[in-house]
Amino acid sequence: MALFAGTLPATAAELIHDADHYILKAQHGEQWAKDDAAVNARLEEFKKKNGGKSPNILYILIDDMGYGDMGIPELNGLRGYETPNVNKFSDESMRLNRMYTEPSCTPTRCAFMTGRQPHRYNMGDTAVDIAGFGLPAKEKTLPEVLSEAGYNTTHIGKWHMGDIKESWPHNQGFDYAAFPIHQQGQLTVFNDDAAKEGVAVSIGPGQYNDRFTKDKWFRPNPAAMVVGCEATKGGTVREVHMKPGERWTEKKYEEMNQRYQDQTLEHLRKLAKQDKPFFLQYWPLIPLSNPRATTDNYTTPNGGTYVEKMKKLDGWIGDILEEVDKLKLAENTIVVIMGDNGHFTKYSPGSGYTAMIFKGGKADTTEGGVRVDAFVRWPGMIEKDSIVNDIVHVADLYTTLSVLAGAKDKLPTDRLIDGVDQSALLLEGETKGRRDTVFIYSGPKMEAVVKEHIKLKVPGPGENPIGAKFYDLQRDTREEYPVSTEIGAWGGAEMVRVIQRHMVMKKKYPDTDADRGLPYDGIENLRPETKAAVQAFLIKNKILLEQKK
Amino acid sequence: MALFAGTLPATAAELIHDADHYILKAQHGEQWAKDDAAVNARLEEFKKKNGGKSPNILYILIDDMGYGDMGIPELNGLRGYETPNVNKFSDESMRLNRMYTEPSCTPTRCAFMTGRQPHRYNMGDTAVDIAGFGLPAKEKTLPEVLSEAGYNTTHIGKWHMGDIKESWPHNQGFDYAAFPIHQQGQLTVFNDDAAKEGVAVSIGPGQYNDRFTKDKWFRPNPAAMVVGCEATKGGTVREVHMKPGERWTEKKYEEMNQRYQDQTLEHLRKLAKQDKPFFLQYWPLIPLSNPRATTDNYTTPNGGTYVEKMKKLDGWIGDILEEVDKLKLAENTIVVIMGDNGHFTKYSPGSGYTAMIFKGGKADTTEGGVRVDAFVRWPGMIEKDSIVNDIVHVADLYTTLSVLAGAKDKLPTDRLIDGVDQSALLLEGETKGRRDTVFIYSGPKMEAVVKEHIKLKVPGPGENPIGAKFYDLQRDTREEYPVSTEIGAWGGAEMVRVIQRHMVMKKKYPDTDADRGLPYDGIENLRPETKAAVQAFLIKNKILLEQKK
Repeated sequence: MALFAGTLPATAAELIHDADHYILKAQHGEQWAKDDAAVNARLEEFKKKNGGKSPNILYILIDDMGYGDMGIPELNGLRGYETPNVNKFSDESMRLNRMYTEPSCTPTRCAFMTGRQPHRYNMGDTAVDIAGFGLPAKEKTLPEVLSEAGYNTTHIGKWHMGDIKESWPHNQGFDYAAFPIHQQGQLTVFNDDAAKEGVAVSIGPGQYNDRFTKDKWFRPNPAAMVVGCEATKGGTVREVHMKPGERWTEKKYEEMNQRYQDQTLEHLRKLAKQDKPFFLQYWPLIPLSNPRATTDNYTTPNGGTYVEKMKKLDGWIGDILEEVDKLKLAENTIVVIMGDNGHFTKYSPGSGYTAMIFKGGKADTTEGGVRVDAFVRWPGMIEKDSIVNDIVHVADLYTTLSVLAGAKDKLPTDRLIDGVDQSALLLEGETKGRRDTVFIYSGPKMEAVVKEHIKLKVPGPGENPIGAKFYDLQRDTREEYPVSTEIGAWGGAEMVRVIQRHMVMKKKYPDTDADRGLPYDGIENLRPETKAAVQAFLIKNKILLEQKK
Repeated sequence: MALFAGTLPATAAELIHDADHYILKAQHGEQWAKDDAAVNARLEEFKKKNGGKSPNILYILIDDMGYGDMGIPELNGLRGYETPNVNKFSDESMRLNRMYTEPSCTPTRCAFMTGRQPHRYNMGDTAVDIAGFGLPAKEKTLPEVLSEAGYNTTHIGKWHMGDIKESWPHNQGFDYAAFPIHQQGQLTVFNDDAAKEGVAVSIGPGQYNDRFTKDKWFRPNPAAMVVGCEATKGGTVREVHMKPGERWTEKKYEEMNQRYQDQTLEHLRKLAKQDKPFFLQYWPLIPLSNPRATTDNYTTPNGGTYVEKMKKLDGWIGDILEEVDKLKLAENTIVVIMGDNGHFTKYSPGSGYTAMIFKGGKADTTEGGVRVDAFVRWPGMIEKDSIVNDIVHVADLYTTLSVLAGAKDKLPTDRLIDGVDQSALLLEGETKGRRDTVFIYSGPKMEAVVKEHIKLKVPGPGENPIGAKFYDLQRDTREEYPVSTEIGAWGGAEMVRVIQRHMVMKKKYPDTDADRGLPYDGIENLRPETKAAVQAFLIKNKILLEQKK
């Protein structure tokens, strides 16, 4: 680590970042200091005008919505649908045109919550069904940071970071949370309507002829899973919306979505009245919606299951933004709208979405998996109708929003934080970004590295590294033409150093595990069928543990 | 043809269109009549305000520039370059978001010139080298139509519709023309710089060791080909810019490009002073530019050979539009800017462009070959900053511009015209388009049919039609997921009828051949090396004719 001397954080109070941050800092540290001063002056000025209060933050995270499907009316036209409200919002916002996420829901949401890429705490996989693990309690989340800085914090909608109590939003910093414990993979696939439409096959009682079924624990009992919960910080957790013996249906899914929308509006109104600034995050479940059962009339020329719901969601987002205006919150609220990863191409083309500009989708580490539409609005502070092409990673929002909220000193300095401060980019504009590198992991495995517009597909075990494939993302958005003959000799060697530096830091700040525990523990009103399902899970787990010996 | 009775043109004075036009007319004829009345009223009003004159027309056709590379700053950002002038123009224009061209240069240009798809007169192939054929004299071109209606007509830049005199612009209706007879395939590949950079190999004297060469006619002599010509209607044709014995270089290509740009500005100024309205078309040769020899400093982050030149061309287009303003022509000039077909993916990714939203490029009949950016500006007449998603084919511009120029009665009524009148779409807006079908030919072969957003890949000989592949272009822009199981039974049968109707009309109005003749005939100052190359061509042709007996 001697190489880094002088550039690594000098005092314990500074944030610890990944290796390449210090390479950039060594080159741009002076300019960054000047930019920071400019940012601080503007934040101070804002606070003064805002009665001494930091800005509110409203964060809307849309599921499986890759790059190009919101904010560009030309592409709307190609797809055969419209998102007029998000498009209008885009005109009022800065588009983060090179926003990188993780390749799927859980890791992206974890990265946003913690500022740390989830490979660092083994949360790179998306869990379905009852799983007994989740976001570690020891991670310091954004709502925890903001709470310490005096914010009210509320979470509404999808959560997807575990089925154990440590991982739930009210135990991870939120004052109030309404959230399902399972996701659309269960909510829209494991139900009778989905079975009838062939979206899911042979799951659950009555959905198939089980004459030959021996292992009753192989299939989940959809109705046994806990879906919607509501909880307050330090308080109880209760399941809502399901009675003992009730079956889950697509109609209930629709009602759940509507409830989250209504609750978002309700909490927005409530939070607006408070003295403290607020952090409200709304993570809708639609546009994901697999059965057509609840689509009444087609409202788009495209007619895809997700596209129809995206149009609905766009209307809902319009309602929320209208409420923001009505409550006179527009000027003092940072609003972020973005996707969480690429399209779920498994449901293409029936969903109405396919990979278009980039190759691949959700779960892929090609750009199609990790590039999303992302917009940030803060009138008077962030240039409206602007586009910045600097690289941003979703983890950067953790650090950046904390800085904008005046909570930088609450960020943890005892661990490696992947998210870098991009407040200068947001407030001072294009080229002020502080990142030129992204490590793209799939679960625990690094699959690609992006530096500038050069992307390396990391060779797998047994692959000869001399044949490693490099792509020029500007000339070849779809990663179809490896350019190793052009940049191999220079880029290859230098990219190895980028990875080596990253691994040095990974060794210095070793990865830890996800938290593990009793699924659903702490839910007051567990249904009998849920208890039975947990019992089955525990027995299966016990057998596994014995087999591992 | 009895089926069509009552909907086919009632009098000889009406245009004859392809079959599906009459299917739509039977359903929308009354509305069309109303829309036509509205269009006519607006055109009359314009003429009155414009001193009784029809609008000028400036038509800029950009080579190999597929969909998404102009007018969308977000996508500019992804590519790593900017087209600020075209983007500004886009904000002032209507985007024809579903403009179809033919899959390559020659057929697209022929379709625009004649309103007829080039499979009807065997001009579907792009000719390189000395070839002895071209656009038939009997086609009635747009400048011929507009000349009859009192327009001054000028062509500057690429032509690419033949090397025989019948096909040249001054014999096809233009008062003045400056044009190369060969194209970028020769101009940027068959030169010493290209040979040194390995763009072309073993062509021409000194560019390779010819110790084993027996057939000296196998390779073209690049320096022998006629490049730039200038001519006036009914006047002489002279080659410019090449002296006997001179070699063609990339520098000369650059000079040629600059000359066409300068000439466009010069003729614009000249035409603006005339009493008559004008039709000026500028068909630049760049962005195509294969060797890097003449790239001084990189001006874009992308740095691709075409991308660099596109940035330059964007600047040139800005100069032209500025001149339009200076000359106070903006209000009474219809300006069209568009691409002629998809990217030439053969030069990807070094060109800086790759297929992105659509699959394929130039020469492909997937959407990537035939979908382009297209913008039409006419202040006060065409809604600015608007997007229409109706299907338009480049041949429609022939008819539509004639209608807007008050020249409808000059259009030929003795042949089938593929181009339909889209003036209501331009003037009255989205959904007013009069086409829902495009037949996509590659040379003489129909390869695909688009109706609405459904695309059929026409099965080849020996392919079982029951397996014919249909694509939903809204859900699947890249034609990757055939949806035959969804629309096969209905769409398959109905699409067969669409093709049958088309073939009935093709039988009624049979295809003819391209004109054939002596290459370069009529050029006053042919160089000795050119004469020798023509001699070789004639002998080769004679041998071929004898072998055919």
